[in-house]
Amino acid sequence: MRDLKLTIAYDGTDYVGWQVQQNGISVQQRLEEGWEAVTGEQVRITASGRTDAGVHAEQQVCSLRSATELPLDRIPQAVNAHTPWDIVVLKAERAREGFHAIRDATGKTYRYQIQFGRRMDVLSRRFRWFVPRRLDVAAMREAAAGLIGRHDFACFETTGSLRLSTVRTIRELEIRHSATEYFDYLDITISADGFLYNMARSMVGTLVRVGQGTRPVEWVAKVLESGDRQQAGQTAPAHGLFLARVDYDPAVTRVAEADSP
Amino acid sequence: MRDLKLTIAYDGTDYVGWQVQQNGISVQQRLEEGWEAVTGEQVRITASGRTDAGVHAEQQVCSLRSATELPLDRIPQAVNAHTPWDIVVLKAERAREGFHAIRDATGKTYRYQIQFGRRMDVLSRRFRWFVPRRLDVAAMREAAAGLIGRHDFACFETTGSLRLSTVRTIRELEIRHSATEYFDYLDITISADGFLYNMARSMVGTLVRVGQGTRPVEWVAKVLESGDRQQAGQTAPAHGLFLARVDYDPAVTRVAEADSP
Repeated sequence: MRDLKLTIAYDGTDYVGWQVQQNGISVQQRLEEGWEAVTGEQVRITASGRTDAGVHAEQQVCSLRSATELPLDRIPQAVNAHTPWDIVVLKAERAREGFHAIRDATGKTYRYQIQFGRRMDVLSRRFRWFVPRRLDVAAMREAAAGLIGRHDFACFETTGSLRLSTVRTIRELEIRHSATEYFDYLDITISADGFLYNMARSMVGTLVRVGQGTRPVEWVAKVLESGDRQQAGQTAPAHGLFLARVDYDPAVTRVAEADSP
Repeated sequence: MRDLKLTIAYDGTDYVGWQVQQNGISVQQRLEEGWEAVTGEQVRITASGRTDAGVHAEQQVCSLRSATELPLDRIPQAVNAHTPWDIVVLKAERAREGFHAIRDATGKTYRYQIQFGRRMDVLSRRFRWFVPRRLDVAAMREAAAGLIGRHDFACFETTGSLRLSTVRTIRELEIRHSATEYFDYLDITISADGFLYNMARSMVGTLVRVGQGTRPVEWVAKVLESGDRQQAGQTAPAHGLFLARVDYDPAVTRVAEADSP
């Protein structure tokens, strides 16, 4: 048996999310089916975190234990022949014994994509939240600066979660603005040591309120202090969110192939 | 009555193309319905050219005659409230009398988007042709250079067309290559005084053959000389093609509003 680390990407539009569920098709189910088709193994594949219905992944990381003797560099192509077009294995690596995609993650980066202004850019609409008015990007950046660092982010956690602590450290929160003749785009990149349930999307929804001018910059610090989800802005829609990267200690994949089964 | 110039964008994925047809919903039909909902007018709206099923437009230009007294700057928002999300009016301008989106066009620019390599980028797949192998971009550029200028492009015209002349002038043919950790992208921009039916897509299909190494660079000049559609490469799939821009003499919209009805 080998512990493996898979890097995968998916277009989450047509899935109920990462995790296997009763009410529809999940990315996990399709990936596990693809794995079984190639190796004959019925294995549980664990992702670094569940993504919700409609959320995408540029580089999601998964862990699994497998007895397959397929060479690592053959695994992506072999599995991709058995997954739907909107799920793709990018890379397969040997990981150290006991590697676990959730427990071993040291950080994550999400990107949230917005298009704003009077008219919708229909060509970016599948992957961007359309906010039909001008946004004050400078005000959003000022408000965002107050979220960087170690804070209790309880106000950005959708209730019902069972986490012990709601303290996280945001390492980076960058709002990049670009524009064409007709459209304005925001790419909001958030890196943290971990994310609470719906944290990225509720932070974005909160910053957008400031951008729209319906709340002042200072309001965001008050929301954070309140620890109250009811105070924060709406949860931004799923289709604009991308899990961009998951970080691990490089040592987890520094495993001699000589240790193979 | 005023002659109007509309600039519109659409995601062509779910349409049978620009032109009204029996076998499905066209962009033209939905736009004319939207126009009627706002103005009560049943008008024919003419686009600079038909785009095929699945082809997109960043800036398509249309002409129509209308008696509406709606201010020009209100037209986009008013019509967009009555079109599906994947069709949007970007701008409405007064045009000189008799303005005709096809006859008056002086040039057009198409962009064709490709992603190539061993794995498909599922997040760009809706708008890029996936070519599952390495492409030799230098060879493609060399072959493309031979297509620039005034030539008889009969070899790139799908038969059945009734055009009198198959001579066109390609003003620009640029192949931009970009890459990320896992994926390679090509953006092929083609500007010409006009395009034959399927010309952009069959040129791209031909250049890709050279990129794949199944044909040498010199082959493209021979195909051009042959004037024979059977010699050229396949028609590249519709979903990677964007009508990026249509050019007109700026004088067509230099009309005093005092001339209004």
